[in-house]
Amino acid sequence: MSKPIYVLNGPNLNLLGVREPEIYGYDTLADIESRCAALLEGTDHSLVFRQSNHEGQLVDWIQEARTEASALIINPAAYTHTSVALYDACKALSIPIIECHLSNPHARESFRHHSYVSLAAKGIVAGFGSIGYELAIRAVLTLVKQ
Amino acid sequence: MSKPIYVLNGPNLNLLGVREPEIYGYDTLADIESRCAALLEGTDHSLVFRQSNHEGQLVDWIQEARTEASALIINPAAYTHTSVALYDACKALSIPIIECHLSNPHARESFRHHSYVSLAAKGIVAGFGSIGYELAIRAVLTLVKQ
Amino acid sequence: MSKPIYVLNGPNLNLLGVREPEIYGYDTLADIESRCAALLEGTDHSLVFRQSNHEGQLVDWIQEARTEASALIINPAAYTHTSVALYDACKALSIPIIECHLSNPHARESFRHHSYVSLAAKGIVAGFGSIGYELAIRAVLTLVKQ
Amino acid sequence: MSKPIYVLNGPNLNLLGVREPEIYGYDTLADIESRCAALLEGTDHSLVFRQSNHEGQLVDWIQEARTEASALIINPAAYTHTSVALYDACKALSIPIIECHLSNPHARESFRHHSYVSLAAKGIVAGFGSIGYELAIRAVLTLVKQ
Amino acid sequence: MSKPIYVLNGPNLNLLGVREPEIYGYDTLADIESRCAALLEGTDHSLVFRQSNHEGQLVDWIQEARTEASALIINPAAYTHTSVALYDACKALSIPIIECHLSNPHARESFRHHSYVSLAAKGIVAGFGSIGYELAIRAVLTLVKQ
Amino acid sequence: MSKPIYVLNGPNLNLLGVREPEIYGYDTLADIESRCAALLEGTDHSLVFRQSNHEGQLVDWIQEARTEASALIINPAAYTHTSVALYDACKALSIPIIECHLSNPHARESFRHHSYVSLAAKGIVAGFGSIGYELAIRAVLTLVKQ
Amino acid sequence: MSKPIYVLNGPNLNLLGVREPEIYGYDTLADIESRCAALLEGTDHSLVFRQSNHEGQLVDWIQEARTEASALIINPAAYTHTSVALYDACKALSIPIIECHLSNPHARESFRHHSYVSLAAKGIVAGFGSIGYELAIRAVLTLVKQ
Amino acid sequence: MSKPIYVLNGPNLNLLGVREPEIYGYDTLADIESRCAALLEGTDHSLVFRQSNHEGQLVDWIQEARTEASALIINPAAYTHTSVALYDACKALSIPIIECHLSNPHARESFRHHSYVSLAAKGIVAGFGSIGYELAIRAVLTLVKQ
Amino acid sequence: MSKPIYVLNGPNLNLLGVREPEIYGYDTLADIESRCAALLEGTDHSLVFRQSNHEGQLVDWIQEARTEASALIINPAAYTHTSVALYDACKALSIPIIECHLSNPHARESFRHHSYVSLAAKGIVAGFGSIGYELAIRAVLTLVKQ
Amino acid sequence: MSKPIYVLNGPNLNLLGVREPEIYGYDTLADIESRCAALLEGTDHSLVFRQSNHEGQLVDWIQEARTEASALIINPAAYTHTSVALYDACKALSIPIIECHLSNPHARESFRHHSYVSLAAKGIVAGFGSIGYELAIRAVLTLVKQ
Amino acid sequence: MSKPIYVLNGPNLNLLGVREPEIYGYDTLADIESRCAALLEGTDHSLVFRQSNHEGQLVDWIQEARTEASALIINPAAYTHTSVALYDACKALSIPIIECHLSNPHARESFRHHSYVSLAAKGIVAGFGSIGYELAIRAVLTLVKQ
Amino acid sequence: MSKPIYVLNGPNLNLLGVREPEIYGYDTLADIESRCAALLEGTDHSLVFRQSNHEGQLVDWIQEARTEASALIINPAAYTHTSVALYDACKALSIPIIECHLSNPHARESFRHHSYVSLAAKGIVAGFGSIGYELAIRAVLTLVKQ
Repeated sequence: MSKPIYVLNGPNLNLLGVREPEIYGYDTLADIESRCAALLEGTDHSLVFRQSNHEGQLVDWIQEARTEASALIINPAAYTHTSVALYDACKALSIPIIECHLSNPHARESFRHHSYVSLAAKGIVAGFGSIGYELAIRAVLTLVKQ
Repeated sequence: MSKPIYVLNGPNLNLLGVREPEIYGYDTLADIESRCAALLEGTDHSLVFRQSNHEGQLVDWIQEARTEASALIINPAAYTHTSVALYDACKALSIPIIECHLSNPHARESFRHHSYVSLAAKGIVAGFGSIGYELAIRAVLTLVKQ
Repeated sequence: MSKPIYVLNGPNLNLLGVREPEIYGYDTLADIESRCAALLEGTDHSLVFRQSNHEGQLVDWIQEARTEASALIINPAAYTHTSVALYDACKALSIPIIECHLSNPHARESFRHHSYVSLAAKGIVAGFGSIGYELAIRAVLTLVKQ
Repeated sequence: MSKPIYVLNGPNLNLLGVREPEIYGYDTLADIESRCAALLEGTDHSLVFRQSNHEGQLVDWIQEARTEASALIINPAAYTHTSVALYDACKALSIPIIECHLSNPHARESFRHHSYVSLAAKGIVAGFGSIGYELAIRAVLTLVKQ
Repeated sequence: MSKPIYVLNGPNLNLLGVREPEIYGYDTLADIESRCAALLEGTDHSLVFRQSNHEGQLVDWIQEARTEASALIINPAAYTHTSVALYDACKALSIPIIECHLSNPHARESFRHHSYVSLAAKGIVAGFGSIGYELAIRAVLTLVKQ
Repeated sequence: MSKPIYVLNGPNLNLLGVREPEIYGYDTLADIESRCAALLEGTDHSLVFRQSNHEGQLVDWIQEARTEASALIINPAAYTHTSVALYDACKALSIPIIECHLSNPHARESFRHHSYVSLAAKGIVAGFGSIGYELAIRAVLTLVKQ
Repeated sequence: MSKPIYVLNGPNLNLLGVREPEIYGYDTLADIESRCAALLEGTDHSLVFRQSNHEGQLVDWIQEARTEASALIINPAAYTHTSVALYDACKALSIPIIECHLSNPHARESFRHHSYVSLAAKGIVAGFGSIGYELAIRAVLTLVKQ
Repeated sequence: MSKPIYVLNGPNLNLLGVREPEIYGYDTLADIESRCAALLEGTDHSLVFRQSNHEGQLVDWIQEARTEASALIINPAAYTHTSVALYDACKALSIPIIECHLSNPHARESFRHHSYVSLAAKGIVAGFGSIGYELAIRAVLTLVKQ
Repeated sequence: MSKPIYVLNGPNLNLLGVREPEIYGYDTLADIESRCAALLEGTDHSLVFRQSNHEGQLVDWIQEARTEASALIINPAAYTHTSVALYDACKALSIPIIECHLSNPHARESFRHHSYVSLAAKGIVAGFGSIGYELAIRAVLTLVKQ
Repeated sequence: MSKPIYVLNGPNLNLLGVREPEIYGYDTLADIESRCAALLEGTDHSLVFRQSNHEGQLVDWIQEARTEASALIINPAAYTHTSVALYDACKALSIPIIECHLSNPHARESFRHHSYVSLAAKGIVAGFGSIGYELAIRAVLTLVKQ
Repeated sequence: MSKPIYVLNGPNLNLLGVREPEIYGYDTLADIESRCAALLEGTDHSLVFRQSNHEGQLVDWIQEARTEASALIINPAAYTHTSVALYDACKALSIPIIECHLSNPHARESFRHHSYVSLAAKGIVAGFGSIGYELAIRAVLTLVKQ
Repeated sequence: MSKPIYVLNGPNLNLLGVREPEIYGYDTLADIESRCAALLEGTDHSLVFRQSNHEGQLVDWIQEARTEASALIINPAAYTHTSVALYDACKALSIPIIECHLSNPHARESFRHHSYVSLAAKGIVAGFGSIGYELAIRAVLTLVKQ
């Protein structure tokens, strides 16, 4: 059995599907977790799926992923643009890192156009809503096979 | 009975009244809380008054205010200028948000001239010292009546 | 009898309540003046309430307030962002200066994020619409008592 | 009879035709006014044509145009680049606004490349000398017919 | 017989009148060409009216205009903001150059506020929709007469 | 039968797999085209897969996709960062647009951090090498089903 | 008899000698005017010495100086840094223009480091307090002799 | 007995000596702590040595040091560049603060060239690897003696 | 026989010697080509000398030079400053690349001070007029001998 | 007898009066020295007048002036804009420092608009040609009397 | 016997201990030299300790240290911020370079926040006054032992 | 006999060929001088070839070249980017000035992309190593013949 795939979610993503669903969609984080888990069925990877509003907690989990995960998918949300700490934590990993955003940050405010995490990421998936997590899982499965 | 009014305070404000009182005044956060509570007596609003040095903790409480409060008064202190996470949390609220600062940030260092929270706030009260909280409470009472 | 409180209003504010009232509200400057005067009844302060579209006229009045007023509340409107002359005039005053804006300038175009007047103001009240003037009057009454 | 067309001219334009005519041309503002009036003969629009060196005076006239004019042609001259007050005044108008410059500002100093008035203008005519006023009148006649 | 007037149109303008006519108007480039030709009837100028999505093609045509045209009206569309090559080509012309835009670039994204072509243009007409081409033709007829 | 999916490739991508394959991989554009076509087998979408070094040619093809395609996947290569023309062309499309990059532009020179095409794209896939095209096809198939 | 020398003073300079004299000195504008007049005794130049808080008034006076003065000494105070209108007015003069500041603007806030008037001035005298006006008068007397 | 010396370490420093030791060296934080403690033997200062990935936790500890420590040595790691909160907390201390970095931040990415903590630090030691902590301890012992 | 030396010329250079020869000189591109060919006589290199106004065409030719040339001399003219595509094409070449400009770009407008092609060039020759091509040929002959 | 007045001149000023006198005037540094000396006759100040092209030499002389001079007049020429060393040297002086420029730096290239020496100067005289030295001497005589 | 340790001091440091000792301390450069020499007693390193106000002289000495020293400690003073020449000279050394500043440059004017020498330095010691030289000597002794 | 050709070399170039020759080549400045002299044999120009680390010394020599040389070739090395003094000295020359760099500054750190000397140079040769000096000599011989 291989090591699990970590999917980490940053601040305010716990409100997904609850807040203004007619705009942001009815998918909750739990729904996305289910669909990701389904995609991993039949593979030798399990899923670790978490959310936190705390920057330090996310740093702890990224460090944990360094030794416990085979790949990291991360949606850093607001910390994407301000956290050098997340960037430093990501740089210490040798497993593939995929940065994932529900919306396209370049179509939003200019302070969302810069990403510290992008500097350490292997690949980026953005703008596909909850489908993006599934694309990231597929990408990871291909990458870890290589 | 209406929902309470939340007053949230950011990092280092717990030192208020303790550190150099001859400069910053002898009012502690507890004193301010008492005066805010006194102002709400006889109204149908109670007060929730908290402080934390942790960005993630403040995000948690803002999310809580989304469903539990009738208005949010927030003094984000240093996070005013750096936290996209607080901004994103505030954007999810449909209740009035008042940003409150003890001093006038525009009379201080230039990195204090930009505020992420201002982008989501209904109103701003700054530079009045501890009186500013009372002005904010009065403003909230008028706004929620409308 | 104490000296009066000056409330000065900058360019285009004379259109308040007349232009698109369904958007900006039905309060005219005259209405705001009445409510401010009502708040001062029973105190030993009278009210001086004026508006001009001319930068130089406002400088003249600020200079007048230096010797004739006990406090200055000013909504410099568009001159907030461009007038070093108003800033220099305000710096010559030793009475409290309160900067007041109907809307939250930080939620508007970026050239409205900088204020010269803020550099000389004791306090700022912004974003509360016409209520903001009343909050400013209350703040002034507390400040001049101290 | 329709409302008149307002043509407003900013600071230093009163020197036109007087100062170095071999360079700037022999047309005075009065000559331009005559040619504009001639173009309006036979239409149901009269002409209001004014000049001032005072920013506040121009704001007053723009406000007057809001209710008294069917269109506004404005050459703000030096205030083009510094006046948020003119911009705010223009934004309150629902009639067509045409920005008109004798020379091409983009072929001059870099501080003339930005225009606040352009942000509120329907159209721009620049670089044609005094002919530009006539082009603007023609454009206005077509626009108000639509 | 004089040399013709060249009207050159840049990338994506071939979609005019076809794409979302309820927004951009029902006038096609062919309609504009007809109206320009009509204005030239009875003068001794014919019309050369072209469009290309290719920067190099536009440079070729501007060079052709250097010897074959009596004036150049150009709507460089997206190349307005990025093409030093068009600017260099225009600089080689001694005939009048008029820059023409359907919309007002200053009311759009900030990267549309700078124009290389403006640096070489005699005059600018912007924001009048398809009427702007006719204003430009009129301006040219006046200019070449002088 | 539905309309085909367009995959457009910008300048220098024709060298893929030929130039320094030990670094950039042995996949040629033809290999990628084959794998994309294979993914579409059994669906009712065919594939249109093209490359050009000419900005104008790419604008022509994007315009063609406006009426002939059900979705557009575009790797604008160097034009990503400099072409307002491609951006304008993309904005005229109402079908989904996916921006695709072989490498992660944010890990390269700073002039590659800005993308005009991102402003018009629904989603972005970057950094996965040739796998990225397949992820984009999968994303498109999900999006057009919705 | 030659034409007089104009000395124009900008906003807030009327407070000179009145406001905090222990800091800014006990010289009033009237004192400075007397000393300037004394220096001109025995020459064939009289003195015109004025102050205004109004930008437009200063433009009017500069235009007057164009035909009525033999030289212009101007202390534009706050308008130094913001007024393109003053700059344009100064450019129309062919007589010598001397820019004069009581304090050294480069030792103050950064927004005082740029001067529009400097772009049109022959010479600059700054930082000498009221002595600077006398130096400027001496310089003018030498310059107009040449 | 004097108050202890506080040594605080920021995010990701817990990985020291574990991650790529051939590059970053085999010294762990525990090794550094031992060497610092050894240097303090025979003095009347004990050592408090801590690490956290949480910005708020570091703010708590700095506040604790305000009353409990005789000096503060801090390696804020990634928070050096983004945390106004740490800066505000440090400003409240009257004991000496030494900023310490393992590597030279100026030889790394440009976003590491700015330090908020430097604005409040007495001294800086950078680029000496783990030796730097010992130099900082020596500096503190000299400073507190004075 | 060795591979030929490619000399590629960008937009508007076809006007050389034709447009204002009293300023730019009477040398045409054909004259320069002749002199370059003369310099290569007696060597085992032939000359390929071309010009295009089309960015894509220049990319095609640079790619051709990758396999068909022993060295590339390129005068990208206006594309020097705007074309990432030319830069990317040049980067794929392992033969020496010499950037050549007739005039000194640093003595012209500031937007000509940056060159993308310089980032990939071995050497630069600028400011010598048509002599510069001959210097570049000489440099190439020395470099390919090494 | 008082200490002498130092007049120091920076790089390339030794060419004054020699290089293109029809443009820069026929006054040499020696002529200016004579006129300054003449002004000091009858006072109790002698003159020390020097020039050097070496930044370090100028620093040496400024340090000498610290103890040997009663005032310093300095024309730092090109070092005005680049030398922090001259600024630091000037800051160590408690005697009056006058910065003097032959031409008006604000009417020249933008890199001449910033002056390090201005940050330490009491007063500035610029744009009066060689007359400026005499004005500076006069100013110094008045200042040292106070 | 090993090669000596070079300690080089830049402009204006010769005034140390002489100018305002109550502020900058009573230590002269000679005192610091003595203490550094004392620290090296009993080691096999001698001390070379110099100061110059001339940038070129410092470059000469750094080049000398390249072959004659075992380590370089340099306090470049004002040249820290402006001298690419010192940076280039330092880059040619393979011995350890320690940058040393008496005060903390980050607590001073913004133009002191950038250091060219830091780009080539192994370590930095700043803000400890004259103690900093001793810390640097200790650091060097440890580094050259490794 | 004509005047000699001056070749001046800036700071740190005396280390050429000595420091890391396997990287920078085995050519010393003396070797380059010999090859330049050989090229001038048989012409009526002799060679003056010098190097200094001192900015002021280079200014002295450039001034000497003004009257003593027929052309100036200068490699200002680090002073290229920081010395306004060298630029001012060069501007005083009417003989041809060629700027010469061993490497291509545009492929190095960004602070090497700007050159003050380029603003005064006739031509630039960069990136050809020591061959560049010979190209510059050849260019000079052609230019002085014209």
